[in-house]
Parts: sequence; structure tokens; C-alpha cells
Amino acid sequence: MPGTSVQKSARLSAEALIGQFSKVRNTSLEITGSLSPEDQMLQSMPDASPTKWHLAHTTWFFETFILLPNVSGYRPFDERYQYLFNSYYKQLGSHPNRASRGLMSRPSLQEVHAYRAHVDSSVLKLLRNSTGDNAENDLLILIELGLNHEQQHQELMLTDSKHALWSSPLAPKVTRAKDVAGRNEASPLSWFEIEGGIHDVGHAGESFSFDNECPRHQVLLRPFQIASRAVSNAEYLEFMTDRGYQRADLWLSDGWDAVNSQGWKAPLYWDTEDGKEWFQFREADMEPVVPAEPVCHVSFYEADAYARWRGVRLPSEAEWEVVAVRHPSKGALLEDKVFHPQAAAGAGYQQAFGDVWEWTASPYLAYPEFKPAAGLLGEYNGKFMCNQMVLRGGSCATPASHIRASYRNFFPPHARWQFSGLRLANDRT
Amino acid sequence: MPGTSVQKSARLSAEALIGQFSKVRNTSLEITGSLSPEDQMLQSMPDASPTKWHLAHTTWFFETFILLPNVSGYRPFDERYQYLFNSYYKQLGSHPNRASRGLMSRPSLQEVHAYRAHVDSSVLKLLRNSTGDNAENDLLILIELGLNHEQQHQELMLTDSKHALWSSPLAPKVTRAKDVAGRNEASPLSWFEIEGGIHDVGHAGESFSFDNECPRHQVLLRPFQIASRAVSNAEYLEFMTDRGYQRADLWLSDGWDAVNSQGWKAPLYWDTEDGKEWFQFREADMEPVVPAEPVCHVSFYEADAYARWRGVRLPSEAEWEVVAVRHPSKGALLEDKVFHPQAAAGAGYQQAFGDVWEWTASPYLAYPEFKPAAGLLGEYNGKFMCNQMVLRGGSCATPASHIRASYRNFFPPHARWQFSGLRLANDRT
Amino acid sequence: MPGTSVQKSARLSAEALIGQFSKVRNTSLEITGSLSPEDQMLQSMPDASPTKWHLAHTTWFFETFILLPNVSGYRPFDERYQYLFNSYYKQLGSHPNRASRGLMSRPSLQEVHAYRAHVDSSVLKLLRNSTGDNAENDLLILIELGLNHEQQHQELMLTDSKHALWSSPLAPKVTRAKDVAGRNEASPLSWFEIEGGIHDVGHAGESFSFDNECPRHQVLLRPFQIASRAVSNAEYLEFMTDRGYQRADLWLSDGWDAVNSQGWKAPLYWDTEDGKEWFQFREADMEPVVPAEPVCHVSFYEADAYARWRGVRLPSEAEWEVVAVRHPSKGALLEDKVFHPQAAAGAGYQQAFGDVWEWTASPYLAYPEFKPAAGLLGEYNGKFMCNQMVLRGGSCATPASHIRASYRNFFPPHARWQFSGLRLANDRT
Amino acid sequence: MPGTSVQKSARLSAEALIGQFSKVRNTSLEITGSLSPEDQMLQSMPDASPTKWHLAHTTWFFETFILLPNVSGYRPFDERYQYLFNSYYKQLGSHPNRASRGLMSRPSLQEVHAYRAHVDSSVLKLLRNSTGDNAENDLLILIELGLNHEQQHQELMLTDSKHALWSSPLAPKVTRAKDVAGRNEASPLSWFEIEGGIHDVGHAGESFSFDNECPRHQVLLRPFQIASRAVSNAEYLEFMTDRGYQRADLWLSDGWDAVNSQGWKAPLYWDTEDGKEWFQFREADMEPVVPAEPVCHVSFYEADAYARWRGVRLPSEAEWEVVAVRHPSKGALLEDKVFHPQAAAGAGYQQAFGDVWEWTASPYLAYPEFKPAAGLLGEYNGKFMCNQMVLRGGSCATPASHIRASYRNFFPPHARWQFSGLRLANDRT
Repeated sequence: MPGTSVQKSARLSAEALIGQFSKVRNTSLEITGSLSPEDQMLQSMPDASPTKWHLAHTTWFFETFILLPNVSGYRPFDERYQYLFNSYYKQLGSHPNRASRGLMSRPSLQEVHAYRAHVDSSVLKLLRNSTGDNAENDLLILIELGLNHEQQHQELMLTDSKHALWSSPLAPKVTRAKDVAGRNEASPLSWFEIEGGIHDVGHAGESFSFDNECPRHQVLLRPFQIASRAVSNAEYLEFMTDRGYQRADLWLSDGWDAVNSQGWKAPLYWDTEDGKEWFQFREADMEPVVPAEPVCHVSFYEADAYARWRGVRLPSEAEWEVVAVRHPSKGALLEDKVFHPQAAAGAGYQQAFGDVWEWTASPYLAYPEFKPAAGLLGEYNGKFMCNQMVLRGGSCATPASHIRASYRNFFPPHARWQFSGLRLANDRT
Repeated sequence: MPGTSVQKSARLSAEALIGQFSKVRNTSLEITGSLSPEDQMLQSMPDASPTKWHLAHTTWFFETFILLPNVSGYRPFDERYQYLFNSYYKQLGSHPNRASRGLMSRPSLQEVHAYRAHVDSSVLKLLRNSTGDNAENDLLILIELGLNHEQQHQELMLTDSKHALWSSPLAPKVTRAKDVAGRNEASPLSWFEIEGGIHDVGHAGESFSFDNECPRHQVLLRPFQIASRAVSNAEYLEFMTDRGYQRADLWLSDGWDAVNSQGWKAPLYWDTEDGKEWFQFREADMEPVVPAEPVCHVSFYEADAYARWRGVRLPSEAEWEVVAVRHPSKGALLEDKVFHPQAAAGAGYQQAFGDVWEWTASPYLAYPEFKPAAGLLGEYNGKFMCNQMVLRGGSCATPASHIRASYRNFFPPHARWQFSGLRLANDRT
Repeated sequence: MPGTSVQKSARLSAEALIGQFSKVRNTSLEITGSLSPEDQMLQSMPDASPTKWHLAHTTWFFETFILLPNVSGYRPFDERYQYLFNSYYKQLGSHPNRASRGLMSRPSLQEVHAYRAHVDSSVLKLLRNSTGDNAENDLLILIELGLNHEQQHQELMLTDSKHALWSSPLAPKVTRAKDVAGRNEASPLSWFEIEGGIHDVGHAGESFSFDNECPRHQVLLRPFQIASRAVSNAEYLEFMTDRGYQRADLWLSDGWDAVNSQGWKAPLYWDTEDGKEWFQFREADMEPVVPAEPVCHVSFYEADAYARWRGVRLPSEAEWEVVAVRHPSKGALLEDKVFHPQAAAGAGYQQAFGDVWEWTASPYLAYPEFKPAAGLLGEYNGKFMCNQMVLRGGSCATPASHIRASYRNFFPPHARWQFSGLRLANDRT
Repeated sequence: MPGTSVQKSARLSAEALIGQFSKVRNTSLEITGSLSPEDQMLQSMPDASPTKWHLAHTTWFFETFILLPNVSGYRPFDERYQYLFNSYYKQLGSHPNRASRGLMSRPSLQEVHAYRAHVDSSVLKLLRNSTGDNAENDLLILIELGLNHEQQHQELMLTDSKHALWSSPLAPKVTRAKDVAGRNEASPLSWFEIEGGIHDVGHAGESFSFDNECPRHQVLLRPFQIASRAVSNAEYLEFMTDRGYQRADLWLSDGWDAVNSQGWKAPLYWDTEDGKEWFQFREADMEPVVPAEPVCHVSFYEADAYARWRGVRLPSEAEWEVVAVRHPSKGALLEDKVFHPQAAAGAGYQQAFGDVWEWTASPYLAYPEFKPAAGLLGEYNGKFMCNQMVLRGGSCATPASHIRASYRNFFPPHARWQFSGLRLANDRT
């Protein structure tokens, strides 16, 4: 997950934060409300966490970084939670092995909900008592950070539980053959031409951002072109039909190893009975793959192989950002509650934000003169800046207020369980 | 688990079975009632299963082997359960990977309880409609088998959930230092001398038994002696103090490998802070090890090393059985609801049954002229007769009506999560 | 490998030992002479050892147990060899990880040959100076033990290097289609009937034996019958043709797991292009499987499944021994230098010794009142008596002077790289 | 290893190539001549290859890409070598599993030497028959590529065999305590200041280069400073003394995982008995770590942690190159035959080339508008451009004619068996 320290930003209003706090905290309960306590305990792979853990960990964040240091006499809801729901902050002491999160039958979901309520009322009380004092600004910034942290976990609640339900021994089967003939086509793909030269990228610090988006800086780009929308399932199926998963020459060496060791034959969650008609897991059942929708749940390796097969490439993250600033179009976001990428519709540059995260050709690295923030939260700013690739633009599981042109998401190149797709780019020579 | 086919036995009464059925089925709910739905989902290692799975699988057994073949027009409670709760009967088709049982958030515990109620009422209806016809005898025998099968799983419900709760990230810590000074001593250990010659062992088939107890047959024994009770914690601590876990010469080669690869330093569930005072996990907390109680949760390798260190050996299963027939003394059994082995008390031969399963020196093999039963249930009678050692006598988690002198339990030599202890024996030369 | 301590036996003559010593030590060089220094370094799996290691380890045995304690002023050939060529005697200190034996480019084969010559001349000098004193008997017994130890390793030199050459990336291919039409049939299979009752088995100690063959003792057998020869390839192919490797009901549970996880479809070293004509690796090439020859390189699991498929069983080791004493017939042994099992020929009970080791139904256990010998060599006598099955009778790679009716070989039930086959038995009821 | 296709370059002279060919091919024999056939067979980890394999594979390259397509009637030395010594060119068909290269006792080293001689004489004959025809240029370029390919493998022959000899069970021990007091200091470390702005990097194609060095292109750099020499052992020991390997906050997350899972406490090949005096493996023995020498055999993770601990950073590969062009100073290279990095001596910018490869902060990526070459050799140009970091400058095992300012080496961030060290850099703000 993106680092969590924060740039100093303009003065926040406590009143505004009160509303935002309630809204964000409630959203976590809303998007998990349909899952039973047993569902919320599932951990289907070490990379993913149980829903209940996410609900508790985001609460732990507020208790640890806001309440304990700032509310005199605050008593932890349960002292054992300080250990139990720490994710990886090693200065705070040890934490449970990540892979054992699925063994947390205790505390119960009910207790975790009580934990949330307890912390919520304490934070709100703190906000309501706000004096507007200048000295308070740091605290408000920290609370804003806690909300952004929770929004990141909201996306993981959705993607982790999707994987968990799909992994159930009551595995969803290909049972429905919905009529998909009537589906509209996606917008036709066109290319946007961008001029070379020195461009500015990164966040200027005028409002909230994660530290990995800073500092704003110059990059030298060569002229390039970029596709008007994400690659669709129909287009990806052409790659599959052309034996894309069988041809070593299309793949990075590590990607080819993954194809073979993991037995990849299609995006994650796809299945077929006859090798022709494809279905994909969505919520709790298998549904036909809709040709017009963006291809989703592919790894960087698959995105890269697809681009090579098309004779083009993926955009760098700077290229992507320059275009997104100019054409901030939106697809489905978390608030749309479809939790599934939608077909591009309309003219112009589509899906800059939402629908699917877009793999870029850029490894996740520090920006020039990146300086880690001070203190606990900044301790590990750069610690994930190795062996990961940058994704841009947010997905159908990203809160609208959480995404922006400078936002950098990152995952290892083999990861497939996020709503990850791709957009093509190319040189102009 | 012991094989599950049955010997033809004397005629059973349907009325008696009705009472027995209700009692056994209720016991499963009683011993799991204190666990939440989330607790009942835990699978802490591939060898163990979630409580909810045990509750469903024992029900599946009745649905599959009694209701579906014998009740015309019986509709399965849920057709997917036929696959979901099959343990390993390969003739019945595929079954989920054992290690994935912890991913079954669905069906919920509530649905599994409803499944039990549905099957219970159908079986009881079948029993109540019994005509007393001779042809029915096979069916009654099958139901009796189903109850014995459930009793086996009751012991596993207790041992598997003990392991699961102990594995929780909310790990129980050594916190209490109860005064243990007042505990009584165990009965002093004495030796029983048994004559050599030809003895009869095994089950004669006059009542219910598993097929692995048959046929009754002759064995040639040499004169031997056997200890009057199980080895106590106090005695085992002497072995530990004498560096028993550090001396390769005391161990079987595979046992020594296990000590080193698993880092064994004490029985399972034991912990210490200072290397002197030892605690053990019991139910949900760590409690001081009570010297007078039988040592428990040791592997065959540890039992064997302990005996070698004492200069004696473990009894063979035939030796054990010959003595148990003569001295059928009882320790704690499931009905006592202590779920923890108790110190031997009184004079004479102690703990033949109950308290701890006793590792024997005997690999689990077919008896001479063992014949697998016909049909589905007999299909795999001998399939576990390799790489396992026999344990005898039942434990504090074994139902009283389930254990007998000829009963053969078996586990791999490294297994420690059962209530397994040992009793010493020796040659008389 | 069988344990290595020895029973006190009748007085040996030093002169006789001199001849025996030279003969056994030369045999090791003869059977490895066709392998290059590079060949002799190969370790194709952790269970197997390089030829060069075997040549050095058997020499280390004489240096460690005979020369160092008995020759005053003896200087080790190279002090590092004390560590380097210790197999598993933990009282002698640490030893290299078994799996790293393939990394021993140094010492060179030439140096190992020099090590052998150095130790040989020292041992021969010791023998030549023998005074015939009574006190010397123990030393002569130890030298005899060293020769038996070397003979065990001679068999491993043959089986380990067979596996290594087969594992080479220059993998032998199915290239030759020799005319096999002319091959003779094996002797027809008949059954020998043996009476029940008390029989004596084990070694009486009048001459050399390993301690695991002792003490001689009584066993109670039921009437049984036993096949007149080993199972042939033709017979085993019937099992394969009847889908023996695809039917779970024929296998022990652990065996079925091995079939699936290892992808077994035939004995080790077998291959086919069309699923009909089978070839097997022999020395350095693939040759057609000869129907009349004994099936070889099968695991205990395969032997057990084959017997179950035939509706019979494997003999116990006591049953096997009782018959072998009465009918000590011989097949190919190491001295025949065919290193491949030969078809049974002639009438009567065949192949009691030689051709293939025969898996028995008996786990490898201590005999009643087995007492480990004192001292270093006896330290670990019983340490391998767990998780292994007994094989009897020797093979085409066993020296003739090394095998006898009481000889107990043992390997884990999944092992296949020895010359291991089977002979059928059955109850007589 | 760097990709192997080549840019078209200026016309080469066949005569010059004849001399170069003999020289490079002989160098491979010279640097491996002290290793026995058994030494040359060792494979101590899957990442490394046996010396014999390197000797054969580099020969296979000439046979496959030069002789077979260009010499009519050329008969392969051994047809099986086409399969056996293919490294990873998948269009050429299958190849042995990399990890099994240590099982190649056959062909013998003698046969591999004969293979080399056979191919050498064929290539030389081809060169001697050169007509100077324009059409031949491509062939000459391919031969030049083959020589550069062989030079890459020469470095691996040295680093792989170093690892193999160190891995031997005859493990080198800390035995010598050489007087190191008299060693000179390394040159004092100073900083070179470089101006920001647009710089040109990459190879212009006027002579031989690998394709990953092209095309030459512009980069935008910010002002930076760079250290005058590589980090020394003395400096690295300060990091170790300051508990550098125990402090999570100094490490990338993946690096910290490696420290813990691999148990890293010092660079590879280092050992200590008392935690104070350190020794390192060099050739065949342990020698004291010399403070003035460059630290070597560290991973990218260690280089990165060291720089963070110093409060600075690693240079990007562009920064490194800009400086190396200006200050092309040389340390030890392969021709110096010390095969060990030497202390920096003298004033000015030191060790731009030789001594140790220097880890940069740059992931290994394609340069802008990089175009894979056509055909077999270009098939996989970019296939390694993921999950690897760039190293620059060559080492004491790099041939002098092989290294240049634009040369890009790359290894995964955890690799330590190359002669890899680091040089510090920093921002100028």
C-alpha cells in the first residue's frame, strides 16, 4: 500500500472533517455489511487480509496515531489490539505474522464493531472540541491521513473479499449463460498525440497527498501517443485466441515463468468449459465475460505481453499523468457501487479515473529529492520502493475523493487480485 | 481415523438406537456450544478440521449412507453438500482439498445446524417406522456405525479446536501462576508381571466394532511387565531436565529430525519463560503444568525416546490389550467434561481407559486374515495401514461408550495434537 | 542402511580375513572402474550418494573404527576426512549435510584412491602382524564388520550411480527397438503351501550377522502359501493395463498420494512413447522391457497395490524367512556382473536370493528382546526402526557372501531406486 | 546477463577478428586451467553454472549462430549438444532445466575441450577465407558478438566457481591471522559535484555494444554529487558495528525480509569467530578482511541500506555514466589476474572501471525507443527488463576490452555472488 505520511497542507476545518470522518467510517461498514461474521474472517492468501482485520486495523490507526498521543487519559479499547492490529510498523513493536490473520476468530466481528464505535466517538469528541488553534493543524492533518488510509483499505476490503469468496470450496461454477448479445460496443479506440519536452509531474502540496507523490518535479518526455480508453475484453480475447499465453517470445522472462508455474491461461477469475465461451467471477457467481468492458485482473506481466503483442507498449507513469491532467474523465468509482469496471462510453479520452487501475511501465521509485517525513508515520516511506510497478487512475473500488492525477498505486508485477487493467501507449517515431 | 466398516453383529433394537441416536447427536452440539460461529470456522493446520466441518461431515455421513439409499424420495438438504462434506471417499467422487476447509465461511454455522436438524428428523422418522423386519438389521448396523463415526469426530472436534484456539494471533500467554503446591501426588508407579505364551486378542464380533479390530486371533507373547499407570508430567520433566531433547542417542533417526526441524523442546502446548516453571495451554489459557497428571500431547517419537531414556520400552498393542482386558480401570472420559487428563488415583492398574491415549510400539497393520468389508464403506478399510502407530485406551475426550480393550486408534509418529501420552513396559529377562 | 553392530561370533582366522579383505576392497574398485572421476561425483537426489563418497566413506570406516583405536601412532591420511566422510555417527561429531555430497569436487577421485591404498596397507599390516591372541578377536570381528559394511555400500554404488546416470541432462532416450520375441518365458508360477504353528526365525549368532537379525526367536504363523518366484514384468504389465495406477481403491492412502504427487505411471526407469511398448533404463541406455524378467524398481506402495489387485498379499518377513531356509535357491548376484534381474528358470522355489529384493508386509522393527550393542557402533542400532519396510533376499547387486535367510534390508515405502521387486503370498483359508 | 543482439557498426576487419578470437577463446581456458575436471562440474546453486558448462555453452553459441547457418556442410560436433548447451533460447527448442547443469558428468571436460578446438578451427577457417566482401559484415559482427558473449561468461566462470569452491563440504575455515596492520589506507573519499540539466547517455553505435545500451538519448538530471571512490570495507564495518543488519528502519521492506530469511549478518563470503575480526573467502581460503579494499559481494539491498544509513543515496545509472565518461579511471580488471578488488589509490575520481561493479538506484529498463533487433538473437532482448537493478563499471573479473561507460550489467536486488559493491551519491540541495 502507498506510504502513509503526509505533506503539510493548507489549514483544514474541523467542521468539514467531522462530516468527512463520519462519511468515510460509515462507508467501510456499508461495503462490508452484506458479509457474515464468518465471511469477514476469510483469508484466502497471505497477500490478502480478512475484512474484519481491515475494519479493526483502520480503527487501530486512529487509536494509535491520534487518540493515544493526543487525548490525555485515553484508555485503549483493548490493550491486546495494539499488537493484534498493527500491520507492519516495526517501531511500534512486533505484530502477528501476516499469514495468520485468518486465524483471528477472536475478537468477534461484534467486538470489532464495538471497537470502531468506541474510537469513532472519541475522535469525533476530539474534533468537536476543536478550538481552531493553529497548533491543532497537525492533528487535523493526521486525521485526514487516517481517512485516506481507511479509503485505501476500503478498496482492499473489496478486492480481498472477492478473492476469498472465489476461493471457497463452495466454488462458484459456470452456471449461467446470460444473453450478452445486446451489450453495446465500447467507444472506438483512438490515439491522443502528446508533444515531447519538459513536463511537470507530481503533487504540489497544496492539498492532501501521500508523500510518494512529492515533490513536484520536471521530467523530460519524448513525443508519444496514448490510447483513448482501456483495453477491452474483446481486444484481450484476440490476444488469447492468437495463443498469447503460449508464446514465450511475447513475455518478459519472469512473466513467462509465472505463466508456467501458475498455469495462467486467462485473467484471474476467468473460467471456461469449452475454451470458447468465457465467464468471470463477479460478487458471488460466474457471469459471461462482456466484450465491451475493460479487461481486468491482469498482472503487469500480462499487460506488458499484451502490449508487445500489439506492437506497442505501456505508458510510463509520467506520460500517463500528463494526459490525465488534461483529460480528467471518469469511469465507475466506489460510490457507483457496481464494483465492476464498465465499458467506455462517449467520445474523447475515457476512463482516466475509475473502472480499472492501469499498469504503467514504471517501477515504483522515489521522486527526485524525495524526503521521508519525520517520525513514526514517515519511518518507512520508501520501504516498498523496490520490486513493484506503478498503477495509475483508480478503479471501480476506489473512492472518488481518494483518487487524483498524481496518485501512485503499486503492486508486484505478478499481482492480479486488484481491479487492474491497462491502457496502451506508443512512441511517435 | 479408524476405518469405518462394521462387522455383522447381533440384532439391534430400533428403540434402543433412537435413544442412542439423540444422545450422540446432541453431544456434538453440547461440546461445541461454547464456540462462536467464527471459532467454529478455524483450521489451524491441514491435519485438523474446523468444528463446523465436523458437524456437517458427520451429518453428511447419515445423509449419504443411510438416507439417500434407504428413504425413497429423500431430497438432499443441499446438493452441493454431497461434494462439500465428503472427507475422502473417492468412489463418491471428488472432494475439496483438505487444507481448504478453513475457507468455508459458507454454509454458515446456522445453516449447518439446520442441516443437522433436517437429517436428524429424517433418520429418527426412519427408525420410528421400523418394522422389526430381519431385513432391516443392516440398516440399523449402519446407523450404529454412523454414531460411532460421530463419536470419533467428537474427539477431533475437541482436539482440533484446542489447536485452533491455541494458534490464534491472540495467543494465550503465560500469565497465571496458580498455587500448585497443594496438588496430590499421582499413585506410585508399580509393575504388573504378565506371563508369556499364546494369548487371544482382537474383537470377537459379538457386538459393534470397527473392522480393524477383527478377526480375533492368537498372538505369541514373551513374558513382560507393564507399568500400573501412565507416565506423569513429573516423570517426563526429569527426562527434559536430563537434556532429553538434546541427546541424539535417545531418539529414533526420524524422531531426531523432527526434534530439530520442528524445534521441539517440550510437549505440544507447553511453554516456559524461565526454563524452569512450565505452563500448558488448556481450553483458553495457560496454566501451570501439574506434576501428578499424565504427560500429554507427546508424539510417538517422544514417547519412544522417553522409554529408551528410562531403559525400558513401550508395550506392543497386544501386550497392552491383554492387560486391559484383565484390569479395565477408568480415568477421565468425555462424559466427565474435564477435557484434560487427571492424575492417577488409587491402587492397582490405573487408567486402562481414559485420560490419555497410550502410544504402543506397534505399527498399524491388518490383523491376520483381515478381510475388508464389501461395498462403499469397506472400500478403503486398510488404506491407512502404513506409516502410522497404534494408540490404545482412549482419552479424556473419548466417549465412554466408544472405547473398549480391542479398540485401535492410530496416528503418524510425529502427531501431537491428540491427547496422547504413554505407559511403560519391559521384557522380563 | 542396516545397523552396523555385530554379534560376538566364533573365532575368526586372520589369514582368512586377509584374503577376504583384499577381495572385498578390490570389488569396490572393479564395479566403479568404468565410471569417470566426473561420473563418480554425481549426486542426483539427497537419498543417493556419489560413488566417490562411497569409496571414501567405507575407507573412513576402517580408519575410524579399526586403525585409529588400534594402531598406536597411526596418523590419519587427512584429518579433514574424519569430518568429511562421516555418514551419520553423531557421537563422532558433526558431519556434512547429506544433500551436499555432490559438491565434493575435492578431494579428487585420485586422492580418494590414494586414501584407500593407504588405509588398505595399514589394515593388512595389522592383520599380518596378528598373533592369534584371544584378545584380538574383537578386532577381527570389527574388520569383518567393516567388510560387510563395504558390501552394503557396493550395492548402493550400483543403485546410486544408476540413478545418477539416468538423471543426466544427456538423458537416455528410447532409441533401440531390440527384437525381444525370442526371449524365453519365466518359469510358470506355482504356490508353496506352508503349515501354521510356531517357527523359529532370526540369526543364531554362530557366524557374522548384523544385530538387527538377532536374537533368534519364535513366531506364531498361520498356514499360508507363497509364490514360487518373483512377479514378472509380464504380470505387472497386466496390472498397468488394467489401470492399476489410476484406481484409488487399489492403493494405501499414502501410496495413492505418492502416485499423484510423483506422477507415477510405471516402475522407476520405465518409459514409453506410445503407451504400449515399454522401455527401461539399464546401465546407460533404454532397452525394451523383457516380459519374463522380474519387475524391478517398484516401491512398497506399488508392490502392495499389485498384490491387492491380484486378490492376495505380500508375505510377512517371518513367512519369507521360513521358506527361504527350506529353499535357498539363487538368482543373479553381484558376482554375476549382469546388474540386472534375470528371468526365473527351472522348477521349484526360485529366486530366494538374488535378482530382486522382495518387499515384505513387515515394518522394520526390533526383534523381541533386541539389545543394542555397546559403544560407538551400537549407539544407534535401532535408530532406523520406524517408517521403513523390510525387504528380503538380496538382488543382482548384492554380493553372494553378504546375503542369507535372516538378512533384513529396509527402505521407506516410497523408495524405488533399489533393485526392489516382490513375491506374492496368501492366507490358506 | 545482458541481452545479446548487436547494433550494426562500422566495418570490421577479418584479420583483426582472427587475433581477437584466439585471444578471447584462450582466456577462457587460462582462467579455468587450475580447476580439475571435478571442480569444473560443480553447481552450488541454480543461479550459477558449472565451469564446464560455460566452456561448452560459449562454444555452442559459435556453432549455432555462426557455423551452422554460414558454413555449408558443417556437421555439429555432437548433435545432442544443440539441446544440451542451449541456455534459454526458446525458439531453438527446449533446453535442460538450469538447476540440473550440475548433473552433467558427461560429456567430460576432455570432450568439451575437444568441442572447443573443433569449433575454433572451423571459425578461424571461416575468418581466414574472408573475401572482404560487404555481405560478410553481418557475419563478422556476429563473431564479435560471440566474443563479447564469451567475455560475459568469463566473469561468470570466475564468480560461479568461487561460489562453488566456497560451498564445498571441505569448507574453508578461518585459520589464518595474517598481519594486516601494514596495509595502506584507501584514497580519502571526496565528492565530485555535477551540474544539472539535459545530458546525453547511452551508446551511439559507432562500435560494438549490446542493444540495451542503445539508443543514445537525453536525460534530465538535477545537480548531484558523487563519491570519488567505492565504499571501503572499513566504512562498511562502521555500518555493521552500528547494528546496520539489525535495524529495520534502514532497509527496504524486501531487503529486510532477505536479511531475516537468509540470516545475513555481513557480505557474502565473510565469516568471523569472535564477532570482531572478520575474514573473507578468496580463491580457496579465508583471509582477513582488508579495511582499505572496496566492500564486495553485497546485494542491492545492502548497498541501499548502507547509503540510507550514511544519509545519502546510490547514483542513478545516468548519473553514474555522465561521471564515468569524464573520469574513466581504472581499477583491477580481469587481465590483472588478482580476481579481487583492490584499494583505491591516488587522487581524483577512482575506480570508474574495475574492482567492483557498482549498484545503481536504477531498475533495469529499456531505453526510450529501444527496438529489439530482428531474428533469433534479438528475440528476447528485453525479456530480462523486470525485477533487476543496473550495475555499472565492471569488476576485477571483467575483461578490459569488454567494459565501457555505457555498459549495463543487471542482477536481481538480492544477488551477492558477483563482485558487487557500491559508490555513494547525493542531491545537491
